[in-house]
Amino acid sequence: MKRTGPDFFGRQRSLFRLMERKKLESVLVTDPHDIYYYTGYEPSSDASLIFQTKSKPRLFVSMLDNESEGLKTAEVSFSKKKGQILKILKNYKKLGYDENHLNAYVFSRLEKSKINLKPSSELIKEPRLVKDEWEIEQIRKAVKITENVLKNVKNKMTGKSEIDVAKEVSIQFSKNFVDNAFETIVASGTNSSFVHHKPGKRVIRKNDLIIVDLGARYNGYCSDMTRTFCSNPGKRERGIYQNVLEIQEKIIDRVRNGVELEKLQKTHESLLKKKGYKQFHSFGHSVGLSVHEQIPKILKKNMVITVEPGIYIKNFGGCRIEDMILIKKNKAEILPAFPKDLY
Amino acid sequence: MKRTGPDFFGRQRSLFRLMERKKLESVLVTDPHDIYYYTGYEPSSDASLIFQTKSKPRLFVSMLDNESEGLKTAEVSFSKKKGQILKILKNYKKLGYDENHLNAYVFSRLEKSKINLKPSSELIKEPRLVKDEWEIEQIRKAVKITENVLKNVKNKMTGKSEIDVAKEVSIQFSKNFVDNAFETIVASGTNSSFVHHKPGKRVIRKNDLIIVDLGARYNGYCSDMTRTFCSNPGKRERGIYQNVLEIQEKIIDRVRNGVELEKLQKTHESLLKKKGYKQFHSFGHSVGLSVHEQIPKILKKNMVITVEPGIYIKNFGGCRIEDMILIKKNKAEILPAFPKDLY
Repeated sequence: MKRTGPDFFGRQRSLFRLMERKKLESVLVTDPHDIYYYTGYEPSSDASLIFQTKSKPRLFVSMLDNESEGLKTAEVSFSKKKGQILKILKNYKKLGYDENHLNAYVFSRLEKSKINLKPSSELIKEPRLVKDEWEIEQIRKAVKITENVLKNVKNKMTGKSEIDVAKEVSIQFSKNFVDNAFETIVASGTNSSFVHHKPGKRVIRKNDLIIVDLGARYNGYCSDMTRTFCSNPGKRERGIYQNVLEIQEKIIDRVRNGVELEKLQKTHESLLKKKGYKQFHSFGHSVGLSVHEQIPKILKKNMVITVEPGIYIKNFGGCRIEDMILIKKNKAEILPAFPKDLY
Repeated sequence: MKRTGPDFFGRQRSLFRLMERKKLESVLVTDPHDIYYYTGYEPSSDASLIFQTKSKPRLFVSMLDNESEGLKTAEVSFSKKKGQILKILKNYKKLGYDENHLNAYVFSRLEKSKINLKPSSELIKEPRLVKDEWEIEQIRKAVKITENVLKNVKNKMTGKSEIDVAKEVSIQFSKNFVDNAFETIVASGTNSSFVHHKPGKRVIRKNDLIIVDLGARYNGYCSDMTRTFCSNPGKRERGIYQNVLEIQEKIIDRVRNGVELEKLQKTHESLLKKKGYKQFHSFGHSVGLSVHEQIPKILKKNMVITVEPGIYIKNFGGCRIEDMILIKKNKAEILPAFPKDLY
C-alpha cells in the first residue's frame, strides 16, 4: 500500500531501535526539524521532545503552541518555565542530547545534576537520512517546482539587478504555493567568486558568469539546485564551466549505494587540485527537512544528497553546478532534469 | 548630520563599554543576528565573533563566507575546523558567551580549558535594545509596507483558504522587495483559538474571527503586526474583540520611558483575569533585527516593543491585536496607523 503521509510512528520506532543498540534509556530532542520529523508538530517557540524507551514520547511546549494539544504522536505538556523540563530530566540516569542544538544554558543546568549525558546528535538525526517513498515524492515535487521557476527566470536576467532576479524567484515560488527553502543566491560577474553571495544591486551583464542557487520547500521537504549561466561567455568562462561540469559528472558517476562519503570527498578534492583549483567547500550534503542535513558515513538506498562542485576565482568570477541525487539499489538517479547549459 | 547607514563602530563601542563595566576582557558572539549587528556581515554558516578589549573584533567564518574577506568592521579569519577557534579562546582568562545560542558541543569543549566562562547573552544583546535614528527609519518602512499589504489582503479573505491568504501576503511582500519577517499567521474560526496557528486548508467564512499576524523585513529590520477581523460578527465575537482592544489600549497608555516591564506584565495579566480570561502569552516583546528580541527591564527612549494581548477560547475562536510601539522621551508612538476595526 502506498503511504499518503509521513510515518511518524515508524520514525519513532527507528529511533528506539538505535537507542536500544546504544543502551540509551532516554533522549532529548531540541532541533525543531527533528521534533517535526518525529511528531508532525512544528513548534513556534523553544520546545523539547523526550524519548524514553517503550513509552510515547513527551513534547514540552509553551502555551504559544496550544495547537499541539491532543497530538496523537506525543504526550503534550505545556511548560510555563524552562525549569519544569529540567526537573523531569533529572530523574533519568543516562540521557542522549543534540550537542549541535542544545544551548549552553540548558546543558550547564543538566551537567549540575547526576545524569550521565551522552552527545547523540548523529543518532537523533540518523533516521532522517534514509527517506521513505512519501518523503521522496515530496522532494521530487519540490525539485519539479524549482526547475519550472528557474526556467521562467533564466532568460530574463540580463539588465536586471541580482536582487530583482532573487525576488522574481520568491514571487514565482509563492505563486506555486511553496516557500524558498533558503535565501536564493544570485551572484553575477566578480560576485560569483563568492560562494554564498547575498544578492545585491549589481546589474547583470551579458558577459557575466551568473550563479543561481535556489530551492523550494514542499510539505516541509527541500530542493537545492544550482546552475551557472553566461549569455556571452569568453574563453575563460567556458573553461571554468567545462571543468566544473566534468568534475560534477565524475563525482556523480561514483555516487552509489555502499560508497563511503569520505572517498567521494577525497575524489572531489583531488579533481579540483588536478585542475589547479582551491577547494572552498565539500562536494555536497544530504537534503530533506533541512537543506543541509548531516552527511552519512556510507551511502545507502533512498538517501538524497547533493553534488555541487564549485570553482571560485578572486576578482574574476566563479561557477557551481549542483544536482540532487537519489541513491537507488544499483544506481543513482539525478533528480533534476534541468539542462546544464551555459546559456 | 543624519546617518545614512548602520553605525557598526558605535555599536562595538557600546559593547566595549558594557564589557568594561563587567570587567569582561573578552566576549564570544555566535548568534548570526548579533554578528550582523556588530559587523554588517551576515554569515551563511556557523560563525564566531570575538571581542577583546581595545582591539578590533575577530570574525571566524568558513570558506563558504569568503565574501567577508576585507571586511572593515572586523579582522576576518577563515577557519577550516571548529577546533581552530577553540585554540584561540583557550588563551583567554575570562570569556563571556551567549548561553542562549552557543551550542553544548563548543561549550563543553570550552569548559575543559581553564577559562572563566561567564553567561553574557543579556550583555551581548543589550546595545540592540535602543535603536538609533537610522534603525527606526528602517522599522518605520517595514511597518508601512506591512500596512499596505494587509490593506490589500483584508477585504478579499472570505471564500479563500487560510493558506491562500498567507501566500497572497508573501507575494505582495515579494513585490515590495521585502521578505516575510516570519511565517504569516492566518487563523480562522476555531483555528483562531490557537495562538500560533499554521495556516491550513480551512476556507474562511464570513462569520469567522480571523487573526492575521504578519511582518516584513526591511534592510534586516522587522515589523510585527496583528489584526483580527470578522465580516459578520455575532455578539460573542464583538465582545471578545472589545475586550482585547480595551486591554491593548490600557497597556499602551502605560507604555513610556522609565516604566518597568514587569509592571506592564502584571497589568496585562490582571486585566485579562478581571475579564475572566486565561493568559496564554506575555503582553509583548522587543523588535529589531529579530522579530522576538530580548525584553529590557526598564523601557528607555528609542526602544521598540509590541503590545499584543490575545484572548483564545477553545473550540470557539480567538482575537489578538498587536501594534509596535516606539518609546519616545515623554510619550510612546504607536507605529502602525492601521485601523483597529473588526470589519
